[in-house]
Amino acid sequence: MMGNVIVGQSGGPTAVINSSLAGVYKTAKNLGVKKVYGMLYGIQGLLEEKYVDLDEHFRGELELELLKRTPSSYLGSCRYKLPDYQEEPEKFNKLFKILKKLDIEYFFYIGGNDSMDTIKKLSDYAGTVQSSIRFIGIPKTIDNDLEVTDHTPGYGSAAKFIAAATKEIIRDSLVYDQKSVTVIEIMGRNVGWLTGAAALAGCQDCEGPDLIYLPEIEFNPEDFITRAEQLQKTKKSLIIAVSEGIRLSDGRYVCELTDSAKYIDQFGHNLLSGSGKYLSGMVSKELGCKSRGIELSTLQRCASHMASLTDITEAYQVGAAAVKAAQEGKTGEMVIISRVSDHPYQCTIGTYHIHKIANKEKKVPAGWIDMDKIGVTDEFMDYVSPLIQEELTPIMIGGLPRHINYNGG
Amino acid sequence: MMGNVIVGQSGGPTAVINSSLAGVYKTAKNLGVKKVYGMLYGIQGLLEEKYVDLDEHFRGELELELLKRTPSSYLGSCRYKLPDYQEEPEKFNKLFKILKKLDIEYFFYIGGNDSMDTIKKLSDYAGTVQSSIRFIGIPKTIDNDLEVTDHTPGYGSAAKFIAAATKEIIRDSLVYDQKSVTVIEIMGRNVGWLTGAAALAGCQDCEGPDLIYLPEIEFNPEDFITRAEQLQKTKKSLIIAVSEGIRLSDGRYVCELTDSAKYIDQFGHNLLSGSGKYLSGMVSKELGCKSRGIELSTLQRCASHMASLTDITEAYQVGAAAVKAAQEGKTGEMVIISRVSDHPYQCTIGTYHIHKIANKEKKVPAGWIDMDKIGVTDEFMDYVSPLIQEELTPIMIGGLPRHINYNGG
Repeated sequence: MMGNVIVGQSGGPTAVINSSLAGVYKTAKNLGVKKVYGMLYGIQGLLEEKYVDLDEHFRGELELELLKRTPSSYLGSCRYKLPDYQEEPEKFNKLFKILKKLDIEYFFYIGGNDSMDTIKKLSDYAGTVQSSIRFIGIPKTIDNDLEVTDHTPGYGSAAKFIAAATKEIIRDSLVYDQKSVTVIEIMGRNVGWLTGAAALAGCQDCEGPDLIYLPEIEFNPEDFITRAEQLQKTKKSLIIAVSEGIRLSDGRYVCELTDSAKYIDQFGHNLLSGSGKYLSGMVSKELGCKSRGIELSTLQRCASHMASLTDITEAYQVGAAAVKAAQEGKTGEMVIISRVSDHPYQCTIGTYHIHKIANKEKKVPAGWIDMDKIGVTDEFMDYVSPLIQEELTPIMIGGLPRHINYNGG
Repeated sequence: MMGNVIVGQSGGPTAVINSSLAGVYKTAKNLGVKKVYGMLYGIQGLLEEKYVDLDEHFRGELELELLKRTPSSYLGSCRYKLPDYQEEPEKFNKLFKILKKLDIEYFFYIGGNDSMDTIKKLSDYAGTVQSSIRFIGIPKTIDNDLEVTDHTPGYGSAAKFIAAATKEIIRDSLVYDQKSVTVIEIMGRNVGWLTGAAALAGCQDCEGPDLIYLPEIEFNPEDFITRAEQLQKTKKSLIIAVSEGIRLSDGRYVCELTDSAKYIDQFGHNLLSGSGKYLSGMVSKELGCKSRGIELSTLQRCASHMASLTDITEAYQVGAAAVKAAQEGKTGEMVIISRVSDHPYQCTIGTYHIHKIANKEKKVPAGWIDMDKIGVTDEFMDYVSPLIQEELTPIMIGGLPRHINYNGG
């Protein structure tokens, strides 16, 4: 007989992270696991013994269907980085005592590259103390920056919202018979997967963005103005997609040129925003035309109403696969998605050593960035297109998408 | 036999302004009108003889179905204010010559209070020169600030997007076990109809915003901080909805306290934005907590993917009613919606003298603003709730909502 399961959510929210939670819960229950616990606020909450018995939350299929359609982390999240064992062994002792008390055999953590560091440290520690608890990471991040896996759940839905919003913003920007520049600022600190997804707006009924600036490429303000000026000779309304994390040649973020308040999170990351507004102001001044900066802001990670069914389904599947991998005896691994083909879109799901994944960051390959046109290549489009396909209709009540509510605290 | 029809779109885009265009076109054709012309870029374009024969654009039902689902003005728009006849009679002469050349008998203009001024001036002029052309205004504005009509098409869909986005932003903001304040900035320069709609997020599965600041009420920064501090004693994550147009006691807009670039449109309106970011910075400094400013930006007026079917249907109906009113001999009037009851929601459609509507602005009644809790009353909720009901499913192709594309220029 198996022991119990505990599952946590960590890092930034996505539109489909709860679908992975549903996949873990449902699969564990189907396999006969007695108790499935949920950590509240990830590993940080667990250290304070904050957890819940998920049987008390998910009583039927309706709750699980709502869970799949509810954005952000149902269990709450954290941006807490576990110290090295050598530095603070007492934290590890405490955690494993809590796990023992709850008779945990399987530990699942849904998160990004920082969160996979937690799985690495805990599985390494379990090895040294000969604990039989199995630790499996479940990939999640809108940033799509995890190594080894073809893509990460959360990315497809964010890409779909970005593309749909960009299409609508483009239509909106065409309305007046005057020159204008719209700069859309998109998330992605160091990697351009999300910003590149704005190119999806370019399809039969929409020209898409005119320039797409990924953070992988040094941003040159003079070249930007020259290009905008050139494009304006044949087009009234220009649409520029920029990553929040674009940098100048001296390494400074463009948004650092603004006077917005700065905030540094516990992983030492700057909260970046303002590059779109800054460039909008600059282009308006240099070209003497109307300009607007639009931040897609947190909506791009929580717009479940425009989620990709492909993404929701895969998020569920990686949750389910984590449980099966643990049952097969695996530990210290992350579930990965491997692409078999683009047309038709086919993937397989497996696992991979966490040491090769944690704390790494997968950038957009240089060959997928179009340096001539400032955009992305067909390879990028073939890669991202399948990830935004199909929809899971929201459950609309009173004119609004219904969620499952749990105010963790 | 009737003469021809010309229809134009004016002012800011909405998610459903094209549904009114569909209503005009289809009704006119059903009544046997030979030609239905569309002005490009409103009256400003017409003065430059920019127009199209809509038969060449709408060949079948699919085009009209796509039109209903396409945001922003299909024909392009303008923010052009017609001068008084006495000032520039040559403009009126020119316009009427163009109308005569096209054998126009019915002139329809879809727009807000500035656009209704155009209908007023043209119908007045037609009276003085004994022209038989009939001029009817068709209401449209997300701001919902037109007098006499119960509400304006465009408002319901904007309200629905604002409410749905606010629900998702609230879920996103709850994710970490730490204090935070999220300030959502919503459109509406002088009237709080849109900002008040954020209250719709408060329903069975969501607490909704904690404070809602309408522009009808003087904004007091000290009181705002005091209230936020007080609320934070019992709640981790605060959500504040503010209008872009909130003002201090000295009459300055809060966004004027920022150093964002200013832009004044041809009606003399400032483009306002930045109050959300400014207040977010202020609250972060004063309360020492994480804070984020989110602008819903143009998405709130162009998010057709979250449009209200009630709104789309009414937008179509006011377009159709305009044609019928003109056929009955009316001119110098605007189509209005009159509410018969909230529960069940019932409305009738009629027309009203344009002189009583043009250039006026309907504010949120003082009795619908909750000054104790800083929000809106149940009367406001009963008013707005019916307007966001039901959906018109987008036609999804390749994972994205499909629009009908016409790049006016």
